Amino acid sequence: MSARARRSQEDMLAAIRAAVLAELSEVGIGRMSMAGIAQRSGTARTSLHRRWSSPTEILLEALEHSYPQETVSPGLDDLRGDLIRALGFLVEWLATPTARAVESIVVERGRHPELARALYERVFDQKGGRFTRTVLVHYAEHGHLDPARITDVVTDIGEALVLKHLADAGSPPDEAMLARIVDEAVLPAVGHPPAGNRS
Amino acid sequence: MSARARRSQEDMLAAIRAAVLAELSEVGIGRMSMAGIAQRSGTARTSLHRRWSSPTEILLEALEHSYPQETVSPGLDDLRGDLIRALGFLVEWLATPTARAVESIVVERGRHPELARALYERVFDQKGGRFTRTVLVHYAEHGHLDPARITDVVTDIGEALVLKHLADAGSPPDEAMLARIVDEAVLPAVGHPPAGNRS
Repeated sequence: MSARARRSQEDMLAAIRAAVLAELSEVGIGRMSMAGIAQRSGTARTSLHRRWSSPTEILLEALEHSYPQETVSPGLDDLRGDLIRALGFLVEWLATPTARAVESIVVERGRHPELARALYERVFDQKGGRFTRTVLVHYAEHGHLDPARITDVVTDIGEALVLKHLADAGSPPDEAMLARIVDEAVLPAVGHPPAGNRS
Repeated sequence: MSARARRSQEDMLAAIRAAVLAELSEVGIGRMSMAGIAQRSGTARTSLHRRWSSPTEILLEALEHSYPQETVSPGLDDLRGDLIRALGFLVEWLATPTARAVESIVVERGRHPELARALYERVFDQKGGRFTRTVLVHYAEHGHLDPARITDVVTDIGEALVLKHLADAGSPPDEAMLARIVDEAVLPAVGHPPAGNRS
């Protein structure tokens, strides 16, 4: 494929991803249609059907595409910084339109349980399951943390506190608050010395 | 006041509290009216106006009335059990109609910021601020925990993980999961030995 053809295909995909988020936000999960997404994105319905079997498949592709994958710094010498950066990915993502789409899927899980399940399996789990989990597992695999302490409860602490802060304060935590979440809640749970004992 | 008059006044208050929750759920925060609450509760509007200045005042009274106050067992010898019971109060409350009312206030905080603020100040803060906080402060005040570790982040860990579990699983945590939240996240954050080190 030529660079130009590839470019135009990427533009088309971007338009389709934006269209499915707009469709969701305006008509709701239950009423999304291929025709609506085709019209909003300026794409032929036949092109959509060639690639996807339903509007929710397009939605899942859009969510997967924009969901961040946390990274680990080389060297295994900055657990605290890696954890703060991991929660920073979550905070950045919360400001995107896909975060609102995810929220509406979670809120409507009762009516669309299969979509909520696919969201967790095909988006969250593919990208590490929970923010801070990739970092914690990496340090544990290299002997810097006790693997027995990297449980599902512990890998959820950072994400839970970020989302709780958003719900209580109406805005996501700033960098200083992310550092406090890591120092006061995440690091103690993996057996790290409290902040006062570190340099 | 005679026992009978007091009883009938309590019945009337209960009917008004139920009415304001029904009104909120059916018409939304912005459209609640004294007339609607009067009709739903079978009370004269003049009686409502004598006691409350607005529908949101009635709503706050109903929320305050049903929001649990966590307790501490006598003896200061069961921190773990007291914490699990504190989170149990939250789980029980989540099944009540007032939990849905609180959720809608939090979701709509952008449109009704003064009501959200009143919810925190007049309901949550009056009842201890966060579940587990009353217990942690009590043990710290009696020298069983380092008061410096009882921060706003730390007192939010249990509540954040319970609400996160509800969002992810679609149902609140059971008793075994509450115990894991306490053992793996709350106790380490207050400097308590991990579960493996206890009897």
